Amino acid sequence: MINNRLNIGIIGAGRIGKVHAETIAFRVPEANAAAITDLNQDAAEQVAARCGIPVVAASVDQILDDPDIDAVLICSSTDTHADLTIRAARARKHIFCEKPIDHSLAKIDAALAAVAEAGVKLQIGFNRRFDPNFARVRAAVQSGEIGSPRLLHIISRDPAPPPVSYVKVSGGMFLDMTIHDFDMARFLIGDEVEEVYTAAGVMVDPAIGEAGDLDTALITLKFRNGVIGSIDNCRQAAYGYDQRAEILGSAGSVSTANCYPNEATISTGESVRRDLPLNFFMDRYTESFTREVRAFVQAVAEDKPTPVTGIDGRIPVVMGLAARKSFDERRPVRLEEIG
Amino acid sequence: MINNRLNIGIIGAGRIGKVHAETIAFRVPEANAAAITDLNQDAAEQVAARCGIPVVAASVDQILDDPDIDAVLICSSTDTHADLTIRAARARKHIFCEKPIDHSLAKIDAALAAVAEAGVKLQIGFNRRFDPNFARVRAAVQSGEIGSPRLLHIISRDPAPPPVSYVKVSGGMFLDMTIHDFDMARFLIGDEVEEVYTAAGVMVDPAIGEAGDLDTALITLKFRNGVIGSIDNCRQAAYGYDQRAEILGSAGSVSTANCYPNEATISTGESVRRDLPLNFFMDRYTESFTREVRAFVQAVAEDKPTPVTGIDGRIPVVMGLAARKSFDERRPVRLEEIG
Amino acid sequence: MINNRLNIGIIGAGRIGKVHAETIAFRVPEANAAAITDLNQDAAEQVAARCGIPVVAASVDQILDDPDIDAVLICSSTDTHADLTIRAARARKHIFCEKPIDHSLAKIDAALAAVAEAGVKLQIGFNRRFDPNFARVRAAVQSGEIGSPRLLHIISRDPAPPPVSYVKVSGGMFLDMTIHDFDMARFLIGDEVEEVYTAAGVMVDPAIGEAGDLDTALITLKFRNGVIGSIDNCRQAAYGYDQRAEILGSAGSVSTANCYPNEATISTGESVRRDLPLNFFMDRYTESFTREVRAFVQAVAEDKPTPVTGIDGRIPVVMGLAARKSFDERRPVRLEEIG
Amino acid sequence: MINNRLNIGIIGAGRIGKVHAETIAFRVPEANAAAITDLNQDAAEQVAARCGIPVVAASVDQILDDPDIDAVLICSSTDTHADLTIRAARARKHIFCEKPIDHSLAKIDAALAAVAEAGVKLQIGFNRRFDPNFARVRAAVQSGEIGSPRLLHIISRDPAPPPVSYVKVSGGMFLDMTIHDFDMARFLIGDEVEEVYTAAGVMVDPAIGEAGDLDTALITLKFRNGVIGSIDNCRQAAYGYDQRAEILGSAGSVSTANCYPNEATISTGESVRRDLPLNFFMDRYTESFTREVRAFVQAVAEDKPTPVTGIDGRIPVVMGLAARKSFDERRPVRLEEIG
Repeated sequence: MINNRLNIGIIGAGRIGKVHAETIAFRVPEANAAAITDLNQDAAEQVAARCGIPVVAASVDQILDDPDIDAVLICSSTDTHADLTIRAARARKHIFCEKPIDHSLAKIDAALAAVAEAGVKLQIGFNRRFDPNFARVRAAVQSGEIGSPRLLHIISRDPAPPPVSYVKVSGGMFLDMTIHDFDMARFLIGDEVEEVYTAAGVMVDPAIGEAGDLDTALITLKFRNGVIGSIDNCRQAAYGYDQRAEILGSAGSVSTANCYPNEATISTGESVRRDLPLNFFMDRYTESFTREVRAFVQAVAEDKPTPVTGIDGRIPVVMGLAARKSFDERRPVRLEEIG
Repeated sequence: MINNRLNIGIIGAGRIGKVHAETIAFRVPEANAAAITDLNQDAAEQVAARCGIPVVAASVDQILDDPDIDAVLICSSTDTHADLTIRAARARKHIFCEKPIDHSLAKIDAALAAVAEAGVKLQIGFNRRFDPNFARVRAAVQSGEIGSPRLLHIISRDPAPPPVSYVKVSGGMFLDMTIHDFDMARFLIGDEVEEVYTAAGVMVDPAIGEAGDLDTALITLKFRNGVIGSIDNCRQAAYGYDQRAEILGSAGSVSTANCYPNEATISTGESVRRDLPLNFFMDRYTESFTREVRAFVQAVAEDKPTPVTGIDGRIPVVMGLAARKSFDERRPVRLEEIG
Repeated sequence: MINNRLNIGIIGAGRIGKVHAETIAFRVPEANAAAITDLNQDAAEQVAARCGIPVVAASVDQILDDPDIDAVLICSSTDTHADLTIRAARARKHIFCEKPIDHSLAKIDAALAAVAEAGVKLQIGFNRRFDPNFARVRAAVQSGEIGSPRLLHIISRDPAPPPVSYVKVSGGMFLDMTIHDFDMARFLIGDEVEEVYTAAGVMVDPAIGEAGDLDTALITLKFRNGVIGSIDNCRQAAYGYDQRAEILGSAGSVSTANCYPNEATISTGESVRRDLPLNFFMDRYTESFTREVRAFVQAVAEDKPTPVTGIDGRIPVVMGLAARKSFDERRPVRLEEIG
Repeated sequence: MINNRLNIGIIGAGRIGKVHAETIAFRVPEANAAAITDLNQDAAEQVAARCGIPVVAASVDQILDDPDIDAVLICSSTDTHADLTIRAARARKHIFCEKPIDHSLAKIDAALAAVAEAGVKLQIGFNRRFDPNFARVRAAVQSGEIGSPRLLHIISRDPAPPPVSYVKVSGGMFLDMTIHDFDMARFLIGDEVEEVYTAAGVMVDPAIGEAGDLDTALITLKFRNGVIGSIDNCRQAAYGYDQRAEILGSAGSVSTANCYPNEATISTGESVRRDLPLNFFMDRYTESFTREVRAFVQAVAEDKPTPVTGIDGRIPVVMGLAARKSFDERRPVRLEEIG
C-alpha cells in the first residue's frame, strides 16, 4: 500500500480486464492500477494509456515479483485461472479471480489450497450479487420483509448465443452461463442446494447441439432448508438480455424486473410500448462491476473476509456438473454425488 | 329449444351453481335457466328467486325427465360428477360439467363412454381458458407473434389454504388445484405433456402434510414438441390470488400479470404502492365464467364441438396422478405410465 | 314499490338508455324495469324484449301517469332533460337524469326548482364518480392517505372526435366533454372551483373550428381551498380512450392509469408492448354505470340523499360557460361572473 | 490542446464543480482538468487531490491568463456567472457556464455580447436535456413517432424545499427551479413559447411566502406553433424527486416515468410496492452531467455549435420573469412584454 492506496496488478486486458482497469482508475479512489499485462501487448498498452496505468508488464511474473503490488485481478482466459491463482497466492498477493476458477474440481481444490496456505484473500467475480436489483431481492429475504422463502425463480437469458467455436471450449452452458445463476440461487436464499433436476434441449441452434452442448434449460433446485427453486436459461431472447428473479416467502414476495435504457413509454395506434431492455451485459451490470471491485479493495484494506469466497467459486461448478449429470441420466442428482 | 333459447337445468346451487345461474339468467340471452335442483332445497330456492328460475326441481330426475330441457350444468360435488354425467348422457341432455370429472380414471372413462354413446355434447368447466389474460397469452402463441414456444411458466397461488377437512377429501393438491394449471399448460402450448417431475413440500401448514397432502410444489413439464415448462403452486400467498403465465418463444415472449381492483398508485414517504390484487377467484375470473357458459350454449346451438372436451377433462387428471407419483418416487414420470 | 322492488320507467331507448335498462334488469335486484318509451318505438321494443320489460309505453305521459312507477331514468336527448325533469317532478317520480340537465342555467334552475318543490330525489348521471379508479383517487384524498391536496391533473381524451353534425348541437366541447371532468375535479378535491383559465385550440379537425368549437384544451382551475388543478382534453388520442387523474398532496400523491383489455405484455425484437387501452366509454366505464344506478335505487329505497345532486348537475355547466368565456376573452374568469 | 486533449480550467469547487471535475478526470478522455480554483482554497485542493488536477489556482485570473487552458467551466455562485463569462470570453476561453447566466436580462445580454465578440463557444448547463429519459421524449417528437405535438406536461417537484436563507437569494422559484422546466419545454417541443399564465401559491412552507416567493405553481404555456403546455412545480414531494414529462401528438403520446434505485417489487399482505424514486438530483441526473460536459468538449474539439447556446440561457430567464408577472397581475403574459 502506497499512500494508503491498494496497488493492483491486472492480468488480462480483454473485455473484462478493461472494465476492471477503468473501475480502479476512475471509480475506486482507495486503489491504484499499478500495472497491467496481457499476452496481447497492444491490448495491454491501450488499456494502460486509457486508464493512466504506469506499467505495462512484459509477463505475469513481473507483476507477481513486484513487492509494491498488493493484489492482482485475474482477468485472463478461464483455463489459466487456477494456475494463476496458485502462483499469485504463492507470491502473497491478494486475488480477485474472474469466474469460474476452473471447470475441474481438482484444479479448483488445488487453487483453494494454495490460497489457504498463503493466507491471502480471494474473491470470485460473481458480479451479479452486487447488482442493485438482485441485492434488493436478497435484502428482502434477509430483512424478513417477505418471511421465510418457499419458492425461487431465476430467469437468465442471453440476447444471442455465442459463436459455436466458443461453445466448444466454454465448458458447456451450465459451467459457462448457468454458473452465474447457481451462485445467484445460493446468494438469494442464503442456503445450499442439495439436489438438482435438469430439463433441457437444443432449441436455438442445432449447431450448439452438434457441439455437444444445450441452449435452453430449466433446472429445479432443492435447497437444504426446503426451499424449491428453478433456473430458466436460454441462449437467445429476441427482446434482449433477460435477467430476473422472484421469491415467494411466507409473508410476501419480491421480484425484480429488467433494466431499460430509459423510462419512456410510447403509445400509438398500434400499441403501448417501451424500448427494449438493456441488451449487453456490460451495460446491464455496469454498477455491479464497480461495486464488486470496490468490495474487494475494502476487504483487503480492512482485512475482512471477501464477500464472494473461494468456496463460493467451487460450489457453482459442482452444481453445473450435477445439472449436466441430471440431464444425461434423466433423473434428479444430489450434489454430494459430484464431490 | 323454446323461442330459440336453450333450456338449461342446473344441478347444484352452491357457490359455482349460483354463479352459472346468474350468468344464464342475466348474461346469456340465448339460454334460459329452466330449472334448478340441490340437495339443499333452500339454496336452490334462493338462487331460483334471485335469477327468476321458474322450477325448483325436487330431484335430478325431474330435470333429466323433462323433455323441454336441452342441457344440464353439473355443479354438484365432485364425487357425483361422473355418475350425473352418465345419467344426463343417457337422458340425451347436453352436459356442462364442473372440473374435475372424477379423481378415478376408470370413472372418467365410463362417463366419457356414455357421452360418446349418447352423442351429446360435453364441456368441462376449465374456465380459466376464457380469462382475457390467459386467452391473450394463447393468442400470442397461436398467431406466431412470439414464434415457436420454448419455455413456459405458470404461477398459480391461492390467497389461503382451504380447511384441512376439505383437503382430506380434495383428492390432493394436484387434482384439486394444479388441475387448472395442467389444463392451462396444454391450452397455452397447444400440445401434450409427456413427462412431469415434481419437487414439492409442506411449507404452509403442517396439518396439510399430516392429512397426506402437499401445499407447495414446482412441477416440471416436458411437452411432446420439446417445450419445457413449470407450474409453481402454493396454497398461500400473503398478497392474494396470484395467477400468471409466461412463455418464451423464438421471436419473443408473452407474460400476463395479476388483476387489480383498480389502477391507482399511491406514493408516500414510505413507498410507491398499489392495492393488493383481486383476492377471490370469483372476482378474478368473473368474466371467464360468463364466457365459458356462453361458449357452451353456442356450441350446442350451432352444433359445434365444445371448446373444452371430455378428453380435456381426462388428461389433467392423468397429469395430476403422474405429478404425485413423481413426488412419491422422486423421479420424472411419463404420462404413459399412468394410463 | 311492489314486492319491495323499486319500479322504474325508462325514458329513452338509445345507447345509454339501453345500458341502464340492462343494468336494472340484470344487475340491480332491488329494482324492476317496469316500462320503457322512446320516440323510436322499435328501439324501445328491442330493449324491452332483451331485458324483459313488460310495458313499452306509447308516450312519456303513460309512464308519468302510472301510479305504480316510482322513479324514472331520463335518457333522452339533452334538449329534453330539463322539461322532462320538471314533468317527472310534478308527477312525483324520483328522477335519475343523464348529464347535462341543460346548457341553459335558467332552464336548469327551473328544473331544480320543480324538483325541490316536489320533494323528489334527483341524481345526475356523472357515472365516472363510480368508476373504481377515480373512486380510489377520491378515497386517497378523503382518508388523508396523501395529506392535503395541492395539485390536481385530469387527463380526459377521446379516441376520436364525434361527427361535426353532432359537434354543432353539442353545446361545445366544454359542456359536452369537459363537463365530466369539471364534475370529477369537484368530486376528487371535495371543494369548489372559483376561477378557470382556458388555453385551447383546434388541432384535430379544422371542421370543428369552422363549427365554432374547439377540440383541444388545457383548463387551469383554482379551488376555494387553494388547490390548483388542470384539465387536459383532446377530442382525439391515437391510442384510444385516455382517462387519468393525479393528485399531489402534502403527504404523497395518487394517480390512476388507464384500463386495458388484458394484462399481457409482449416482448419482441422491436419493443416491449401491450395492447391498447379500452377504447370505448361503454367498456371503460361498464362498472360505473351499474354502480350509479344501484346508488340511485338505494338512495330512493333508503330515503337518503343521492350521491350526485341537482347542484352537482348545475355547477359543471357554470364551469363550462366560464371556461368558454375565458377562452373568448383570453383571461382567467371567476365562476361568480357566470351566475 | 495538448496531446489532442482539451485543457479545462474549473472555476468553483462546490457541489456542481466537483461533479464536473470528476467527469472530466474520469469520464471524458478527450479533456484534461488542468486547473481548479475556488474562494475556498481547501475545497479546491480536495477536488484537485481526488481528481488528479495538477494546479490549484490562487485566482480566476491565474486560469484565464494561462495560455494552455482552452476552456473554462464556470461553476461558481450565480451572481458571478455573467461577469466571469465576460472575463473568460475576453481571455478567449471557450465557456461552459452553469445556469442561469444571471437573473438580469441586461447582464445576460452583456455576457452574450462579449461571447459573440470574442467568437468563443458558450454552453449553458441545462443538463436535463442530456438525461436519457427526456432525450427519448425529444426523440419521439423529432422522429415523428407521435406525430405533431398538441399538449405537453412537465412535472418537476423537489423532494424538499431549500433553506429559506437560500430562497431569499435564489431569484425566486421561477428563476431557480422552473428555469430547468422552461428550458425543457422549449427543448422537447422544439419551438418557442409566446405566452405564459401562472397559477401558484404557498402550500409547503409559509416562511417561503414571507420571503416573497412561491412554492407551488402550475404554469400554462402557449407555443408559437399552437402547442399548449403546462409545468407543474412543487418544492416538496413526500415520495422524492419527481421529474416527468408527457406529450400528446397527433399520432400518439410519449411519457417518461421517474427513476428508481432498483427494479424490485415487494408484495405483502399490505400492498404491492417498490422503493421510492431516486431522491437526489445528483443521483437522478448522474448520466446527464457526464453527457453535457462531453458534448461541450466535442463541440469545442470539432468546432461545432454547442447544443445549449447563449440564447438558450437567456430565454428561460425571460419566461421566468413573465411567469412571475403573470402571477402578480393575475393574467396571461406574453414573453414580448418582458423583452
